[in-house]
Amino acid sequence: MSLEASIKRKLQLSAAKVEGFIEKVLVPNKPEEVYQAAHHLIRAGGKRLRPYLALKSCELMGGDAELALPYAAAVEMFHTFTLVHDDIMDNDGLRRGSPTVHTKWGIPLAIVSGDLLFAKVYSAMLEPGSSGKLSKDRVVSCIESLTNAAVILSEGQALDILQSSVGDVSEEDYIYMVGGKTSALFRTCAEVGCIVGGGSEEEASRLGSFAWDAGIAFQIVDDILGVTADEITLGKPVGSDVREGKKTLITIKALENASPEERETLMKALGVHNASASEIDEAMKVLTSTGAIAYAEEVAAEYTEKAMSAIASFPDSEAKKDLVELVEYFTKRSY
Amino acid sequence: MSLEASIKRKLQLSAAKVEGFIEKVLVPNKPEEVYQAAHHLIRAGGKRLRPYLALKSCELMGGDAELALPYAAAVEMFHTFTLVHDDIMDNDGLRRGSPTVHTKWGIPLAIVSGDLLFAKVYSAMLEPGSSGKLSKDRVVSCIESLTNAAVILSEGQALDILQSSVGDVSEEDYIYMVGGKTSALFRTCAEVGCIVGGGSEEEASRLGSFAWDAGIAFQIVDDILGVTADEITLGKPVGSDVREGKKTLITIKALENASPEERETLMKALGVHNASASEIDEAMKVLTSTGAIAYAEEVAAEYTEKAMSAIASFPDSEAKKDLVELVEYFTKRSY
Repeated sequence: MSLEASIKRKLQLSAAKVEGFIEKVLVPNKPEEVYQAAHHLIRAGGKRLRPYLALKSCELMGGDAELALPYAAAVEMFHTFTLVHDDIMDNDGLRRGSPTVHTKWGIPLAIVSGDLLFAKVYSAMLEPGSSGKLSKDRVVSCIESLTNAAVILSEGQALDILQSSVGDVSEEDYIYMVGGKTSALFRTCAEVGCIVGGGSEEEASRLGSFAWDAGIAFQIVDDILGVTADEITLGKPVGSDVREGKKTLITIKALENASPEERETLMKALGVHNASASEIDEAMKVLTSTGAIAYAEEVAAEYTEKAMSAIASFPDSEAKKDLVELVEYFTKRSY
Repeated sequence: MSLEASIKRKLQLSAAKVEGFIEKVLVPNKPEEVYQAAHHLIRAGGKRLRPYLALKSCELMGGDAELALPYAAAVEMFHTFTLVHDDIMDNDGLRRGSPTVHTKWGIPLAIVSGDLLFAKVYSAMLEPGSSGKLSKDRVVSCIESLTNAAVILSEGQALDILQSSVGDVSEEDYIYMVGGKTSALFRTCAEVGCIVGGGSEEEASRLGSFAWDAGIAFQIVDDILGVTADEITLGKPVGSDVREGKKTLITIKALENASPEERETLMKALGVHNASASEIDEAMKVLTSTGAIAYAEEVAAEYTEKAMSAIASFPDSEAKKDLVELVEYFTKRSY
């Protein structure tokens, strides 16, 4: 079986269990509409990387993944909450091929369904404490980890809003923002899995670093695919990231390295919604000629390597293999 | 000293400590703007009833109010988070005499500053666990109480959004909605105070009922003042609640009791933004002639009585006197 087919099967297997738990936590109450809105993006699909990361981190410590299920559900619900609010902030109409929550139910109900999801994240995390399956000490540690991520994520999202133009963003800002928007939650996935699996604070922190770096690599690879993949695999027109002026390591580096002429070519297309196809095309060439794509590939490889060396410090096991495979999958994927 | 002067002095005294703790939890990080936005409504003032209720509930159990400070701060931050998001949903431009957060910083930053406040609510609640001042058991119980309130509050707010016209709302719906929008958090204030103060589950639940009923009375009295107070004490033109079609026990009951003629008079003004001054005036008279105001006064008195009988079951103490005084103050106030 190919790496892709193998990891996809494993993701699907764990996703089914996680989705089952989410259905239990998000059981509809009055008014039903806010629960439909909260379920909407979860039911629209998603790779469920984050819950998988939590479950495998639990197994890595020799724990029973079943016990980590509430935390796997919590991180996916938390991720969904951020998507619901982000879509409002970014004024996005479509996500995972479905209308976004505010498009379907309006901004007020979308805001409150996000808030409901956020609250239910904590309901899920409290469950193993109430049922006596996990010590209150470990429940509190998990809640601490998720709460830290929530603070960092809000800061990262705020930074993204405030630096509205890619020209305002330095490489350092970018890494800081990706840390907030992607890595903070990846780290929490690894930490909560590790804590539930019986890991020590030191182990949680070490596995957390692995996930943090893997998250940065994951996001940079996403940026690369955004300018190198074709329309069918991307699911949106080639050059969309350029047209939307998306803040990526590639666009930031290209602006930094560009000659005055190259810069002019970029500025005709970056974030210019009515740029012509040939203007977009010329700008895309500059991303290569400035060495920005190659640079991003290098940085992604560095973060992948850092992640791999952190996970290498754990004893060999099936779960370790799965985690290595996961990182290989999402840093080498072609879509 | 009058009841009003006495309670105001006590509220101010505890408010200063709570605000000090909030400043510590919300210490600015990058980007500063999102922290300014999160602080904005807190710094704009407010009566700080909720933290006072938490601190006094702790003292009622013989606990040191100092220990309950993080939870008092948490409930006030939580309250502020709901105000920030509600103002966006209701499209309100002013609150406590200041521009609302989204008016000052825009909707995206307002949404994320609310999310940041929500996350920091949990940071505050975790603090006494990390510092070893409170057992993890009690920390988890407090987090459970607040999380329950957050779920119920989201449901109440969703119901408010979905039942956009006062004509759609029954008295039962109204009490349910007020339960979600006001009482759920009041109950949590009493519960967390009680838990931190060493109270048993049974005591927390009993004190929680007291606060729940007091919250309903508080909201109904607010509704009454909205149609009986004068412009200066209200801080907005007389009849604003009628013009805005606010869902109150009074408007609901008036519609229910109205004769066909009275109903017609009401419908010319309820939620009609361009209604004339005389149309508003006529509608206000119907609120009295239908017995709706008298009815609301009766219901508020019933909930106040229920609250008072719940608190009566606790042994006498200074804190008990203060809690009784608080309920007397906010159910008998004239503004």
